[in-house]
Amino acid sequence: MDAIISPQEQLNILSKAEVAKLLDVSQSGLYKLFRSCALAVLNCGNSLDDGKELLERYPDFAIQIIQEERGIKLEVKGAPASAFVDGQMIRGIAEHLFAVLRDVVFASSDERLLRSLDNDRTEATTDAVFHMLRNADVIRPKVDPNVVVCWGGHSISMGEYDYTKKVGYQMGLRGLDICTGCGPGAMKGPMKGATIGHAKQRLGVGRYIGITEPGIIAAEAPNPIVNELTIMPDIEKRLEAFVRAGHGIVVFPGGAGTAEEILYLLGILLHPDNRELPFPLVFTGPGSAADYFRQIDAFIGTTLGPEAQQKYQIIIDDPEKVAKAMVGGIASVRAFRKQTDDAYYFNWQLKIPRDFQRPFAPTHENMRNLQLNREQPNHQLAANLRRAFSGIVAGNVKDEGIRAIEANGLFEISGEQSIMQPVDDLLTAFQNQGRMKLPGSHYTPCYRIV
Amino acid sequence: MDAIISPQEQLNILSKAEVAKLLDVSQSGLYKLFRSCALAVLNCGNSLDDGKELLERYPDFAIQIIQEERGIKLEVKGAPASAFVDGQMIRGIAEHLFAVLRDVVFASSDERLLRSLDNDRTEATTDAVFHMLRNADVIRPKVDPNVVVCWGGHSISMGEYDYTKKVGYQMGLRGLDICTGCGPGAMKGPMKGATIGHAKQRLGVGRYIGITEPGIIAAEAPNPIVNELTIMPDIEKRLEAFVRAGHGIVVFPGGAGTAEEILYLLGILLHPDNRELPFPLVFTGPGSAADYFRQIDAFIGTTLGPEAQQKYQIIIDDPEKVAKAMVGGIASVRAFRKQTDDAYYFNWQLKIPRDFQRPFAPTHENMRNLQLNREQPNHQLAANLRRAFSGIVAGNVKDEGIRAIEANGLFEISGEQSIMQPVDDLLTAFQNQGRMKLPGSHYTPCYRIV
Amino acid sequence: MDAIISPQEQLNILSKAEVAKLLDVSQSGLYKLFRSCALAVLNCGNSLDDGKELLERYPDFAIQIIQEERGIKLEVKGAPASAFVDGQMIRGIAEHLFAVLRDVVFASSDERLLRSLDNDRTEATTDAVFHMLRNADVIRPKVDPNVVVCWGGHSISMGEYDYTKKVGYQMGLRGLDICTGCGPGAMKGPMKGATIGHAKQRLGVGRYIGITEPGIIAAEAPNPIVNELTIMPDIEKRLEAFVRAGHGIVVFPGGAGTAEEILYLLGILLHPDNRELPFPLVFTGPGSAADYFRQIDAFIGTTLGPEAQQKYQIIIDDPEKVAKAMVGGIASVRAFRKQTDDAYYFNWQLKIPRDFQRPFAPTHENMRNLQLNREQPNHQLAANLRRAFSGIVAGNVKDEGIRAIEANGLFEISGEQSIMQPVDDLLTAFQNQGRMKLPGSHYTPCYRIV
Amino acid sequence: MDAIISPQEQLNILSKAEVAKLLDVSQSGLYKLFRSCALAVLNCGNSLDDGKELLERYPDFAIQIIQEERGIKLEVKGAPASAFVDGQMIRGIAEHLFAVLRDVVFASSDERLLRSLDNDRTEATTDAVFHMLRNADVIRPKVDPNVVVCWGGHSISMGEYDYTKKVGYQMGLRGLDICTGCGPGAMKGPMKGATIGHAKQRLGVGRYIGITEPGIIAAEAPNPIVNELTIMPDIEKRLEAFVRAGHGIVVFPGGAGTAEEILYLLGILLHPDNRELPFPLVFTGPGSAADYFRQIDAFIGTTLGPEAQQKYQIIIDDPEKVAKAMVGGIASVRAFRKQTDDAYYFNWQLKIPRDFQRPFAPTHENMRNLQLNREQPNHQLAANLRRAFSGIVAGNVKDEGIRAIEANGLFEISGEQSIMQPVDDLLTAFQNQGRMKLPGSHYTPCYRIV
Repeated sequence: MDAIISPQEQLNILSKAEVAKLLDVSQSGLYKLFRSCALAVLNCGNSLDDGKELLERYPDFAIQIIQEERGIKLEVKGAPASAFVDGQMIRGIAEHLFAVLRDVVFASSDERLLRSLDNDRTEATTDAVFHMLRNADVIRPKVDPNVVVCWGGHSISMGEYDYTKKVGYQMGLRGLDICTGCGPGAMKGPMKGATIGHAKQRLGVGRYIGITEPGIIAAEAPNPIVNELTIMPDIEKRLEAFVRAGHGIVVFPGGAGTAEEILYLLGILLHPDNRELPFPLVFTGPGSAADYFRQIDAFIGTTLGPEAQQKYQIIIDDPEKVAKAMVGGIASVRAFRKQTDDAYYFNWQLKIPRDFQRPFAPTHENMRNLQLNREQPNHQLAANLRRAFSGIVAGNVKDEGIRAIEANGLFEISGEQSIMQPVDDLLTAFQNQGRMKLPGSHYTPCYRIV
Repeated sequence: MDAIISPQEQLNILSKAEVAKLLDVSQSGLYKLFRSCALAVLNCGNSLDDGKELLERYPDFAIQIIQEERGIKLEVKGAPASAFVDGQMIRGIAEHLFAVLRDVVFASSDERLLRSLDNDRTEATTDAVFHMLRNADVIRPKVDPNVVVCWGGHSISMGEYDYTKKVGYQMGLRGLDICTGCGPGAMKGPMKGATIGHAKQRLGVGRYIGITEPGIIAAEAPNPIVNELTIMPDIEKRLEAFVRAGHGIVVFPGGAGTAEEILYLLGILLHPDNRELPFPLVFTGPGSAADYFRQIDAFIGTTLGPEAQQKYQIIIDDPEKVAKAMVGGIASVRAFRKQTDDAYYFNWQLKIPRDFQRPFAPTHENMRNLQLNREQPNHQLAANLRRAFSGIVAGNVKDEGIRAIEANGLFEISGEQSIMQPVDDLLTAFQNQGRMKLPGSHYTPCYRIV
Repeated sequence: MDAIISPQEQLNILSKAEVAKLLDVSQSGLYKLFRSCALAVLNCGNSLDDGKELLERYPDFAIQIIQEERGIKLEVKGAPASAFVDGQMIRGIAEHLFAVLRDVVFASSDERLLRSLDNDRTEATTDAVFHMLRNADVIRPKVDPNVVVCWGGHSISMGEYDYTKKVGYQMGLRGLDICTGCGPGAMKGPMKGATIGHAKQRLGVGRYIGITEPGIIAAEAPNPIVNELTIMPDIEKRLEAFVRAGHGIVVFPGGAGTAEEILYLLGILLHPDNRELPFPLVFTGPGSAADYFRQIDAFIGTTLGPEAQQKYQIIIDDPEKVAKAMVGGIASVRAFRKQTDDAYYFNWQLKIPRDFQRPFAPTHENMRNLQLNREQPNHQLAANLRRAFSGIVAGNVKDEGIRAIEANGLFEISGEQSIMQPVDDLLTAFQNQGRMKLPGSHYTPCYRIV
Repeated sequence: MDAIISPQEQLNILSKAEVAKLLDVSQSGLYKLFRSCALAVLNCGNSLDDGKELLERYPDFAIQIIQEERGIKLEVKGAPASAFVDGQMIRGIAEHLFAVLRDVVFASSDERLLRSLDNDRTEATTDAVFHMLRNADVIRPKVDPNVVVCWGGHSISMGEYDYTKKVGYQMGLRGLDICTGCGPGAMKGPMKGATIGHAKQRLGVGRYIGITEPGIIAAEAPNPIVNELTIMPDIEKRLEAFVRAGHGIVVFPGGAGTAEEILYLLGILLHPDNRELPFPLVFTGPGSAADYFRQIDAFIGTTLGPEAQQKYQIIIDDPEKVAKAMVGGIASVRAFRKQTDDAYYFNWQLKIPRDFQRPFAPTHENMRNLQLNREQPNHQLAANLRRAFSGIVAGNVKDEGIRAIEANGLFEISGEQSIMQPVDDLLTAFQNQGRMKLPGSHYTPCYRIV
């Protein structure tokens, strides 16, 4: 399908200089990235968690910016038909396309942002994250804290999926908004549930925030229910966006990606500077997931110790209790921010050590060199474990990662036995439970514990 | 649960005289009706299609109007807990309670309306229907026609239910709003689907109109997604409201109630005065419902003849095609109304013969005396067949009907063999397919063909 | 000028029965009234305070309701050109035309309202006033009290006019909305001033409520700034609407009409039942009006006594102080209503004796028979004095009154010397100050003190 | 008066880096400029056209940014009392203060903007103007052209002032919005008139755009009716903002500043590249101004020739005709932009030669060196004449200019006799008509023709 679409809002009034820059940037090295993110967005609704396959399936897909005296338009060619209804692009998808243009192309013409991104200071990275979120209109002043981030797998069972909907519904009934990684499974269910909860409480259209990044977007295409989409430059900034924009976090069952997220957050919360900061965190799933969370809990206990275990609460099969825990936890967050005179819309006070911000490239060498031992503080171990799982996600579903595995064989991970054993057990369990890839596809591990 | 709630809108600014009248009326003979409708609304979300059982389950439930200098409030006692979240009544349900107050109590203090209701002229009845709908804010000027009425059973299979959601989704994607009888099953699915479609197209909050009546409301409690609820005085006015406020109709599989609705509409469309009026009508279901509609179609062919069969289109297992048929059909409706300078919001031109307006009381005597033979024009036969099915619905699920059957035994229906045979076959099929009552309950027929 | 215009809001969705009734009523005896009010509204902006002359100036003016399937339109012929801009009717004026249709014609097809109007009980009259105001959307729930009624003459000096603008400006700066009799002079100035005050405080579009009646509308045509216009059936209901819908009153210099308003309000406030009710009342004018208010104050002291003098405050040449007095006074009103659980939008608790509600027809006989002596309680004397001034207003500017004087000579008023002397002095002062008629016209008295 | 106020919109969500920068900049060399602009804004409503005197009158006035975790606030001390109502700052003035913060301080922390400002290319300057206007939310997409720029003197007679209100009123009735230099006199009248026109047409709150610059703001303090204020960096960018953001221009009588504006615009329109561009331009005033415009017209004819005279239309004493001319002219602008696919919100196609963009510093030396002779193309002569008048405005009312005159005596201007004579005549006429300074103050010329 072909189409020409017009931007809304911000990208609707560009100066001539900005349009020229945009054309330059979009036709330069960024084009490939722009095209693949745009294709991912247009492909939403189709079950496919293989970034490489997506690109191969639509070889003729093209997107370009059309310059007009009065501004710009976007022209797409060879787009997936599912993005259209009776020849018209679904409006939510058109909005997402312009989010891609804004975050991938326009952001790259913003020199202040580029400078922040290049800068190696913690504050500069946080500034860049803030800047991207504000651009995406995710930062909302004068609103009470109510954003719950939901993490969990893209490949979960029907029972688990229904459970995420129920939790979303109970949160929606209580006026909470939802933020996720915006793919399928545990990232979609809570939004669908909350939509119904919001409707029953006559809350108008709720906020369904999706935060993704170019590497994962193809595997976890944003559902068009997402009405505030932002594409962060990399996985580490995406994670920082979650923990700074969200007011509480609910973790549903998932695979390696979910483990990565848990380790990221626990590592940060273990940092001494964050000890007093309230941060509601709940792990939850249906009855069938009880074992799963027992195993996660044990893994955390073994690797990061009991202090880490005190940072979360596990609730099994009780959506209402989860929602109430979030309401209560967020009330504490609000009180704390009010008392410390901090913004409601961005968690400026959370200390994120540089280790958690620095992008980790999942090359074979980097994976091999990970320090997975106890000769480091717990939050550093968490940082390195996070990287290990991050690499496995890349090898499983990301275009680049899949190609690296095809070219160089499995990733090799090694470390202290008392850590590697639980890691191995956890990953094996993920495989057996079908959490690594969407059902229907056969999973071949991309790593080897050595 | 107990609660005191304040009205919104219209009932928020009453004169002292109106408040006094309201108190009078609510404490008079109308109290029983007011209480049972209120209870039905509060019970939403619970599976129960037995009006009698509902009333017996909450014997202590009470509702009353509290007068204040500045207006009124509603006090409920002993209400079902499911209507509350953390001690607060769900706002959609509170709105429905005030819809009950408005349509059951306040309407009874409106003398012009009462006079229209008492009047035996066709125009007076239509005027009353218009008046009720306008009171309920269902009449919207300056909006293009886009209301699709969805009919179908409250007790349908999971497969059929999912199908109604998909049809609702495709219609929502095309900007169509949904109106149903506002109970479960085929009355809820299209609304849920459309909610997602509207969200993806960024259409804001869509219209989810529910039209019910005091007899059926307990068995088919309005889902709180319904954001425009109106309770018509009786089943005949409810049916007239559907065909005058809707711009097209989709019929999903159902039981006796759905058959009643089909016969009502076909009877009207067969009237010579309505021959030129465009009225999009589609029967649809998933693949598994193909046989069901073949039987319905045959029943119509045998009893009302081929002209009746030309009034609808049967589409099996193709939600997109259904949605497109509605879009196309409603475009014709719009063109016709524009050309004839008629309102978009109310089908004034549709001729509804008095036979279809006059309330039918499903007593044993009335059921026995129904004229089910060919010695009358087709649209009159349709009117009588409609009454037969209407009586059976009452005997199945309505408080009054159930009590009548308990007291006097089965309804007896008789008539010409060439008509009674197809009726018997159809009803038997409904029973065998579990369409008479919600799954889980055992169905004992309330009628006998003699 | 000729034009066809479409209604907004309420009159946009009428039933067929309502349209038929509207046509009937508008073509019956009401047509004359409808036509003259419509002409008055269309004539706004032109200086003319002679109802009779207006009608004679546009003999060919005609207005009629056009029926369409989908509702109604209004057709005007021979209308004053000043109501149009480049061939289009000014939208504020079109709104006023439909207010005339609503209050003059549509209200007369509302049987409940008609019954209230016919009823001789105090409560019924109050109910009718409420009903008219609610119809006109003047009743607003959930808004803090902030409506200041401004009374004063239509014929005032430039200095006085500028002063009313300044007071309006200071009130607008403090978020107060304005309600007046909606003619020129002291009825227009405060609205113009408030418009600027509201704009500077970014309060959006303020409320500029105009309350008039068919007799006076021609002489005091509503300025199109008035964005909530209502035409009460007669002068007594207009006065009741002012004191029930307003939260405080400011009186500027004026003539006989202003004296009528002052006497009406003081008579009511003197009633024993109203003694505890807070009712902010300020008389104000520029320095040049100091003598004027001294005379008014003396007149009140002589005729109604010192208790009446305690009901108001006189502020000379200090717009800011006036505005602050209103802010403070209305805060007391709010506290009182909150405490007594009364509505903010309508002063239900104010007792208005039947004497003040009963319409007074200014015939020669009625004028002659007025009891202007001390053999009655003070509030009854106030009621009768009010009638005397009301009659003089009619003889000065109303079509009917002017014709009566032309036919039967001057009104004759008589009474106790100690009352008639101050009355004569006051009226003579009004004449000398040019307050009876617009500047430029010569004033011939319409009365004689005997 | 002292106060602390919170920002709205844009400045409400700043990153930590932005806040830090803001503090730096505001406390650096920019503080003096920031303070004087803030004081000018707070002084609105007071008649004073002497920038130097203003600063001397409030020596203790101070303003500073207060940093909070969650953002910033502004603290003012020793501010003029007229900016407050009952201790609260008037909201329109608070908005203007933040406009000053945004345009004077925040803009100076925007490096892209600074780079454009530094750049000597025409396109860069235009880009900076666009950037400032977009920041100020003056650029509105999807709106039909309707912005009329009104130029004219700050010191005009009452009759002329009333006339500007009437023209504004007629334009407001026709849905036109107003943009001016936002001082008193001809800059305020059209906005007040349009406010009433907009209200009568129920257009909601209209747009009242004020474009000023730091040098002039003290002498022409923005009226709080201005609801879109922007402070351009210098007079040349302010002029460019007028002609690019406005769709048509009305010139009322004025003094040296108005002459500067006329010469600026005619100089541009005389450029060959702009010959085909529609640009509605009307000179207008009441009957008493007929001579004034005859003289202006003659001056233009003598100095720039008949081609320049064809660029405008003179309309005397006919507000309606002026408004219709603007409506018609802007319709052509819309058609032209549509046809050439240009934006409605910014006149990208207008060619502004570098000569008109380059800031002119009114030093004694620069004034002396102005080339005022015919040995140059007409549009260059216009540019130089523009500079001459610009210098005189500075000497008359700007702080810096007044100090320069005090220090170094009168400006000396010389040139060809055939040009200097008309210049001298015109300036003398301005003096005699009291157009140089506000009435009440005695005008001493700041220049000498040599």
